[in-house]
Amino acid sequence: MNKFDGIKEYQFHDYDIKNNKGKDLNKKLINLNELKNMIDFKDGMTFSFHHHLRNGDGVANIMFDLIKELNLKDITIVASSIFPVHANMVELIKNKNITKVYTAYMSGPVADCISQGYLKDGVYMHSHGARARLIMEKEVNIDVAFIASPCVDQESNINGSEGKSSCGVLGYAYADALMANKVVAVTDNIVNKVADIEIDGNNVDYVIKVEQIGDPKGIVSGTTQITKDPLGLLIAEYAAVVIEHSGLLKDGFSFQTGAGGISLAVADELMKIMQANNIKGSFASGGITGYLVKMLEANLFERLEDVQCFDLEATSSIVRNKNHLKMSASHYANPYDKTNIVKDLDVVILGATEIDLNYNVNVTTASNGVIMGGSGGHSDTAAGAKLAIIVSKLVSSRLSVVKDKVTTITTPGESIDVLVTEYGVAINPKHKELIEKLKKETNLKIRTIEELYEIAISLTNKPQPIKLSDEKVGILEYRDGTLLDYLYKVK
Amino acid sequence: MNKFDGIKEYQFHDYDIKNNKGKDLNKKLINLNELKNMIDFKDGMTFSFHHHLRNGDGVANIMFDLIKELNLKDITIVASSIFPVHANMVELIKNKNITKVYTAYMSGPVADCISQGYLKDGVYMHSHGARARLIMEKEVNIDVAFIASPCVDQESNINGSEGKSSCGVLGYAYADALMANKVVAVTDNIVNKVADIEIDGNNVDYVIKVEQIGDPKGIVSGTTQITKDPLGLLIAEYAAVVIEHSGLLKDGFSFQTGAGGISLAVADELMKIMQANNIKGSFASGGITGYLVKMLEANLFERLEDVQCFDLEATSSIVRNKNHLKMSASHYANPYDKTNIVKDLDVVILGATEIDLNYNVNVTTASNGVIMGGSGGHSDTAAGAKLAIIVSKLVSSRLSVVKDKVTTITTPGESIDVLVTEYGVAINPKHKELIEKLKKETNLKIRTIEELYEIAISLTNKPQPIKLSDEKVGILEYRDGTLLDYLYKVK
Repeated sequence: MNKFDGIKEYQFHDYDIKNNKGKDLNKKLINLNELKNMIDFKDGMTFSFHHHLRNGDGVANIMFDLIKELNLKDITIVASSIFPVHANMVELIKNKNITKVYTAYMSGPVADCISQGYLKDGVYMHSHGARARLIMEKEVNIDVAFIASPCVDQESNINGSEGKSSCGVLGYAYADALMANKVVAVTDNIVNKVADIEIDGNNVDYVIKVEQIGDPKGIVSGTTQITKDPLGLLIAEYAAVVIEHSGLLKDGFSFQTGAGGISLAVADELMKIMQANNIKGSFASGGITGYLVKMLEANLFERLEDVQCFDLEATSSIVRNKNHLKMSASHYANPYDKTNIVKDLDVVILGATEIDLNYNVNVTTASNGVIMGGSGGHSDTAAGAKLAIIVSKLVSSRLSVVKDKVTTITTPGESIDVLVTEYGVAINPKHKELIEKLKKETNLKIRTIEELYEIAISLTNKPQPIKLSDEKVGILEYRDGTLLDYLYKVK
Repeated sequence: MNKFDGIKEYQFHDYDIKNNKGKDLNKKLINLNELKNMIDFKDGMTFSFHHHLRNGDGVANIMFDLIKELNLKDITIVASSIFPVHANMVELIKNKNITKVYTAYMSGPVADCISQGYLKDGVYMHSHGARARLIMEKEVNIDVAFIASPCVDQESNINGSEGKSSCGVLGYAYADALMANKVVAVTDNIVNKVADIEIDGNNVDYVIKVEQIGDPKGIVSGTTQITKDPLGLLIAEYAAVVIEHSGLLKDGFSFQTGAGGISLAVADELMKIMQANNIKGSFASGGITGYLVKMLEANLFERLEDVQCFDLEATSSIVRNKNHLKMSASHYANPYDKTNIVKDLDVVILGATEIDLNYNVNVTTASNGVIMGGSGGHSDTAAGAKLAIIVSKLVSSRLSVVKDKVTTITTPGESIDVLVTEYGVAINPKHKELIEKLKKETNLKIRTIEELYEIAISLTNKPQPIKLSDEKVGILEYRDGTLLDYLYKVK
């Protein structure tokens, strides 16, 4: 009887990985030449790296040099994000050294090169939470993980928040350290004992000491800044009014916001409202900026859940504040991780490159189809939060953010609850009660998204649809691995 | 280029269904004979019913009579649960009138008959949340839903909490009403205007008036009762200590417990602790009993989220207390429903027929493989809650609840966090911090689950493994539709 055949089996998601590679640093400390002898580098392997050093990263380039020197072919790269600093990948992609890429975000020459169709087996773009899922569930097997490590101690423990190349936290690298076949820590700072173990030495195979793992100027920015644009500030004010009247802003409130100028302005507005009403939130999460640190230190949240530090104030806070906690990407946003915190979010503030009449959001491609971003935590937090709010100027550089159809779906519209623009607020029509409540209690201009679209079109004229080629260069996977959209070749 | 083929597409889960069948009751009120003319009943159709009238249900039997009278063949039944009162199904199953069944729970003659292999195309067992998913996502298409309706008004609106057959709430029937091709409300109580619209008249096609939709004695029990067994009370006390020291019991605490005698005793213990420490929780959820009503009225929770009333005190509270809220099964536990509340649970107290060394729980079959229960909300709440606690006597009727391997996996072990027994408390080893905390702060006997197993085996001797046949009679699906386990034919 085969009537029950063909149903995909449940996968256990229990992530209690017990690696035990020993802890003695002296047995692991080697140089790059020795590494070539220790690991049997071969064509077809999968390498990973993380992006906590952002556009100052020097470690991925060590890996790219190795691929080039050994002339490895058909390499898959699993990168949490790819920045302009990783431009050395372009040559390797064109020469078929690297033929497949997984990433949650990319911008710069590598993104352009992939959009132009050079990557033989295509790019798989996903969210930060999905990356943790892919690795923890062994959907992707990493042969060698290269972990840029701001600090390593005598027990080979790794910490991200000590030393000249501190990046604060290594949240995206935990999965790689737990699951990769070989884990290579690259560091410029060896100490007796790390103040805080982020990655346990038992998970580390080799440690390579270099002069400098990255350029401090590119690793963290000085301070992320609130927008100075009066329209942006107005949008932030509107968004704060929405939150204030959503019924969610009360003791225990949980919040996430990105590092965009308008998003930060929302946090600043929110801070005033919480202080005036004596509201104490539970946590703020995500990539952490100085504004959230300020809210923590003003006692407006019990704790910060930090997967990635965006600025100097965050990297210094994580050392100073004991309720500024480090978390893994799996704990942050892996839909199969029972402890994931995005599901506990009340409100998330997000940006959009495009949003369409079904509330689908694109933050992955420009209107011409070129890759210039990616989900990061966008679709994770939008799915988890009770209220996912998009803040954006309706019209910018004579372009409307609202489209009849987005070029690429990064986050499905059903996850998006509110769009706040300078011309008014559109609320996903499924929230009938919220619409009535905001109409009754506030002076906000509540409009349908169709009305906002009409306003924008009247100001900008309807854009000519851009014809993309039908040659696929990649796919966009949703959090659970299902297909959201394709990425197409551009000229 | 077909390199991206074969990936399952993302399904949009936006459930804003706009049925509009008109509201005028007079146009819909027909008798059973007229129904046979109005609906083109055919072989191969799918019918659904809900179990809010529990073992007092009289409506499913009307449907079974219809199947028998028309001698319909190859009918699929989508039932939220099946009770002994539904014994009329047995004949229909044996005669191949009914050949396939979906349900979240079953006990009694129908369960026995299916375990014996009589159901031609097998049974699909799932959780309450998965049933909502199956229906809302159109994975199962219902031709005709029969909705037992304690009250219908002149606009064909349905309410579950008025009239002689009140069952309090109709949470499991909402999905059927929204998605079925034809919706037949069967009622014994027509009023001018319902006090509370649970199912909007726009979703109703036909209304049939009968003398009595069920037996009030079977619909709700008088009061669900705390265990009187001193060992059960001891277990409840231990469980309350675990909760108290879990770090979760603070303002905003959310809680669910079943209606079992030990589970209710945990609620009672918890009540004392919350009162003594002046803790105000956010919500309690699930099937609601008088004990949770008592906690609501003692102001220990802001609200109750009720998908199903278990007793008279719950059905009367839902009329009286405006913060005793009705919810749909989708809002309760559908993993694809963004608003699902199980993901917001701090603690859930659950039972187990068997639990194994990997913490997998069986509440579906007896050790001989016979179906005698089902997940209900077990795997939903265990997956959602931060702390899923199993309370059970370790040894009962000379049988150990801990097995080396469960007969059937209802809830995967990764979702289960704690097992509390009279011989001590076992904690899933992934919770290292909790284990240390409880060892330090409490007098609880913290043991490994292997130790509890050894204790039980020394008291009961090792049971002989029971050989099941390898003929499959059904499957157990996880919340997301993946395969958890099979159900096998018994002799």
